[in-house]
Amino acid sequence: MHVGSQQNRTAVRNKVFLGLFVHSTALDELEYLHETAVFVDKSGTIVAVEKNCNEEKVRETVLARLGWEAADVEVVKARGGQFFFPGFIDTHIHAPQYPNVGIFGSSTLLDWLNTYTFPLEASFSDKAKARQVYTRVIRKTLSHGTTCAAYYATIDVPSTNLLADLCLVSGQRALIGRVCMDSDLSPDYYRDASPEASIAATKATIEHIRTIDPALSLIRPVITPRFAPSCTLPLLRQLGDLAKETALPIQTHISENKSEVALVRELFPPSLTGAADDSYAAVYDAVGLLTERTVLAHAVHLTEHEADLVAARKAKISHCPCSNSALTSGAAPVRRLLLDRGIACGLGTDVSGGYSASVLEAARQAALVSRHVAFGPGGEERDRLSVDEVLFLATRGGAEVVGLGDKVGGFEVGMEWDAQLVGLGAIGEDGEEQEWEGEDGGPGGNVDVFGWESWPERVAKWVYNGDDRNTVKVWVKGRLVHERK
Amino acid sequence: MHVGSQQNRTAVRNKVFLGLFVHSTALDELEYLHETAVFVDKSGTIVAVEKNCNEEKVRETVLARLGWEAADVEVVKARGGQFFFPGFIDTHIHAPQYPNVGIFGSSTLLDWLNTYTFPLEASFSDKAKARQVYTRVIRKTLSHGTTCAAYYATIDVPSTNLLADLCLVSGQRALIGRVCMDSDLSPDYYRDASPEASIAATKATIEHIRTIDPALSLIRPVITPRFAPSCTLPLLRQLGDLAKETALPIQTHISENKSEVALVRELFPPSLTGAADDSYAAVYDAVGLLTERTVLAHAVHLTEHEADLVAARKAKISHCPCSNSALTSGAAPVRRLLLDRGIACGLGTDVSGGYSASVLEAARQAALVSRHVAFGPGGEERDRLSVDEVLFLATRGGAEVVGLGDKVGGFEVGMEWDAQLVGLGAIGEDGEEQEWEGEDGGPGGNVDVFGWESWPERVAKWVYNGDDRNTVKVWVKGRLVHERK
Repeated sequence: MHVGSQQNRTAVRNKVFLGLFVHSTALDELEYLHETAVFVDKSGTIVAVEKNCNEEKVRETVLARLGWEAADVEVVKARGGQFFFPGFIDTHIHAPQYPNVGIFGSSTLLDWLNTYTFPLEASFSDKAKARQVYTRVIRKTLSHGTTCAAYYATIDVPSTNLLADLCLVSGQRALIGRVCMDSDLSPDYYRDASPEASIAATKATIEHIRTIDPALSLIRPVITPRFAPSCTLPLLRQLGDLAKETALPIQTHISENKSEVALVRELFPPSLTGAADDSYAAVYDAVGLLTERTVLAHAVHLTEHEADLVAARKAKISHCPCSNSALTSGAAPVRRLLLDRGIACGLGTDVSGGYSASVLEAARQAALVSRHVAFGPGGEERDRLSVDEVLFLATRGGAEVVGLGDKVGGFEVGMEWDAQLVGLGAIGEDGEEQEWEGEDGGPGGNVDVFGWESWPERVAKWVYNGDDRNTVKVWVKGRLVHERK
Repeated sequence: MHVGSQQNRTAVRNKVFLGLFVHSTALDELEYLHETAVFVDKSGTIVAVEKNCNEEKVRETVLARLGWEAADVEVVKARGGQFFFPGFIDTHIHAPQYPNVGIFGSSTLLDWLNTYTFPLEASFSDKAKARQVYTRVIRKTLSHGTTCAAYYATIDVPSTNLLADLCLVSGQRALIGRVCMDSDLSPDYYRDASPEASIAATKATIEHIRTIDPALSLIRPVITPRFAPSCTLPLLRQLGDLAKETALPIQTHISENKSEVALVRELFPPSLTGAADDSYAAVYDAVGLLTERTVLAHAVHLTEHEADLVAARKAKISHCPCSNSALTSGAAPVRRLLLDRGIACGLGTDVSGGYSASVLEAARQAALVSRHVAFGPGGEERDRLSVDEVLFLATRGGAEVVGLGDKVGGFEVGMEWDAQLVGLGAIGEDGEEQEWEGEDGGPGGNVDVFGWESWPERVAKWVYNGDDRNTVKVWVKGRLVHERK
C-alpha cells in the first residue's frame, strides 16, 4: 500500500499500441488515426506517435530509432471493431455515496443531503465499510473507463486516507478531497467541530498523500469545502488561505439548485463577506477559493455577471447532467459557458446525486440535456452538444478542469498513457452476434455494428448505447488497471 | 414458421413460479408479493396466485386443488436478489430502423426522416437484409424484457410479413404495422403509388397475419398511417374506413415537433378535411383515425383543446422520451395527460429516433425528462414521475395502450404469463461481486446491492442502472423466449 506496490508486480516493459486511435483535437472535432502506432515508455509516457504504421514497420524502423529492444516491448493491438480512446475523467464524484446510486426518490438537493447522504457518509467512520465501498467504487469506475477521478470522500480522515491508498494500489489517478463542513446546516453527528479541527484534518490527509505518493504523480490532495452553506465563514477563509499556501487544487459546489442559491445569499451577504456582490461565486471569490485551480460542480443557475466572474478567475466547471436532472436541479447551459465565456468544462458523474458511476452515461446525458436547454426558454440551436463535443468534455475538457490538461486526455507525445480499449459488437448476416472478420470477438454489449456504419457513426452508437461491456482494457500511466473478463 | 412451431418444441408443462413478484397495482403503487407462488397453465394463463406460499405448500395443497400432477409441473424459483416482473411493453418501435440507433447527428424530425430513415427503410425490399435486421431487433428487445412490441415495419409487404413470421417463431407478442405513406413528403423511391395501392398492401399483411395466427393470439395487424403529412387525405380516409370495418388497432404519430405541427396545419386545413378545428388531432378525428383503439406516438405539443379531444375519443398515447430528447422535439407533459385528462399512456422506445431498444431506458428517461418538465416553463412538482409510475407506464400502462390491458401487464388470475425474471448483483464485504447467500449468483451488471437496501430501493437501483444483464429470463404466454447465458 505504498508507492512501490503499484509497479514491479511484473517487469515493466515498453509498450506499443497499434490500430485505430480516436481522440479530441478540438471541442467539436474527433480525430480518427487509422493504422497508427503509439509508443509508451516504462514511465507510462507517450514517446512517439507514428501514423501509417504497422507491426512490421514498428519492428524494422521505429524500435531502433527509440533504442528499444524488441524483447523489451509489449505490443497491444486494437482488433476489428476496436479502438483506443483516452481514459475518461470524472471531475466530480462522491466516493462514499456509491451505494446510494439510483436512490433519491423525489428529493431535491437540501432534503436529499439530510435523508440519503449525511447518514451514509457518517457511517464511514467504520473503516471496514469504507474499505468495502471504496474498493467497489474504484473497481466500478475503472471498469467504465474512468482513469482519473476527482473524489470527495467524507470528513473522516482515516477512511479518506484509505481511499487515497486504494486508488494508488489500484492504479487509478485521483484527486482526493477530505470534505470540510463545520456549519450547523449539517447534523450534529456529521460535521467538523470547528474551523481549526477541519483545517487540521485536511492537513492530515494532505500529509498522508505526500507520504504515499511524494511526487503526487498519481494521487493529489484537493482542498474540499463541501459547499458554502456547509461551512462557516472562518472555515471558508482558512481554506482559502490553505489553498494559497499549498497551491493545491480546490473543489466545491456552486449554484446547483435555486433554494441553495437563495440560502447562500441569506447566509453570506456582502456585508459579512466583503464580497463585491451578493452572488454565490462572489462568496468563494471573497475568501480566496475562486481560482484557476478551482473545480466548481454544477453551475446550473449562474447569473451572467457571475459567469463573467468565474471566467475572469479562470475557475473550471464540472457539468453533472445526470445529477441535475435526477434531483430536479435544472439544466446547465454548458455550451454557452464553453463558447461565450471560454470557461473550461468537464463532466462529473456526481455519484450519487447522479445515478450512474459512468462518465459515458454522463456524456450521453450531457448531449440529451443540452437539447432540453436548446428547446427551453431562451434556448437556441447553438446550445446543443454533439457527440464529438461530449467526448471532448469527457476527456480533454475534464483534464483541463482537474489541472492535468498537459498530461492526459489525448494521444500526444509527452502525455501519459491513460487510455481505454473500446470494443463494439459485430452483427452477422443471420442477425446474430459474430466475430469481427478474422478476429476473436469481444463482447459487444448493446452496441451492434452491422458493418456499413462509418467510424463516426460507430462512435455515436457507442456514446448512445455503450456501457462497461465495451471497455475492454484500461491503462493509467502505462499500467493495465482493468481488463474485462 | 407457422403457429404450431411456437409450441411443441418440448412437451409443454404447467408452471409454478415461486418467490418475490413485483407489479403495479395503480399508477403510483408497486406491490411486492414476497414468498408467493403463481400458477400458469399450459395455455400460458395465470390460474392461481398464492401468497405466503412455498414449494412444500405448492406440492401438498395447491397442485391437488388445481388437479395438476407433480410430474407435469415445472417449478421456476426466483433466488436471492431476483424477482419476477411483468414483461415490458414497447408501444412504439420502428423495427427496420434498429441499425440506426444512436445515429441521428444534430437532425430534427423532418430532416432526420430524409437523411437517415427513408433510405434505410427503403432497403428492406431486400429480404435478406430484412431477415437480418428483424431477427436482431426481436432478439435484442426480448433480451431487454420486451414481451410485446407495437412495431412499424416498412411499406414493403413481403418483409413486413416476414417480421410477423419472425415474431411468431420467436414468441414475441407483437402488433405489426405495414407503413402507409403515399404523399410526396416521402421520396419517389420510397412511397406508396396510390391510396388504393397502400390499402391493398395493408390488406395483404392483415391477411398474412390472419393466416399464421388465425386467433390473433400473439400477433395482430395494426393499421399504420405513418403520420398525417406522409399521407394524402384520400388515403387517411380509406384507412379510417378500413379501421372501422376491421375493428383493428391503429397506430400513428402526433405532435412530435413544432415544424411538423405547422406542416399539418398547412397541409390539412379544416376547409379540406371538414375537421372541427385546425389542430393535428382534429385531422385524425375527421378521417376516423382517432379512436379508442388508436396509439398516438409522442404528443409532445398538444394544445389543451386537442388533449381534450384525444381524451374524449379515448385514444392512447405512447410517450417516447429518449426520442423526444434526442431529436430535440420537446418534453411531453405525461403526468398531466395521465392525471388531468385520464388519457392512457405507455412508453415507446421509438427506435431509432430513440437511441435505445430498451424499455427500461425509456422508463429511466421518462423519469428524468419529467423533471425537466417540472422545472421548465409552467412546470410543477406534480409533473415529476416516480420510479413506481414509470414502471407502471412500462407495463400496465403500455398494455392498456395496445389494447391488452385485460391480458398482460400484471400478475392476476386470468392474465397471460408475460414476464421477466430480474436479477441484481450482490456486493460482498471485500467490495467484490459475490453470490447471494446460499445461491448461485447471476450477473449483476451495473446494479450493485450491498444488502442493506429495501426492496423499493433495489427496484430504484434497477430502474436507474439496470440493463439487459439484469433480465435473466423472459416468458411470453408461458413460453420461455429468452434466457441469459
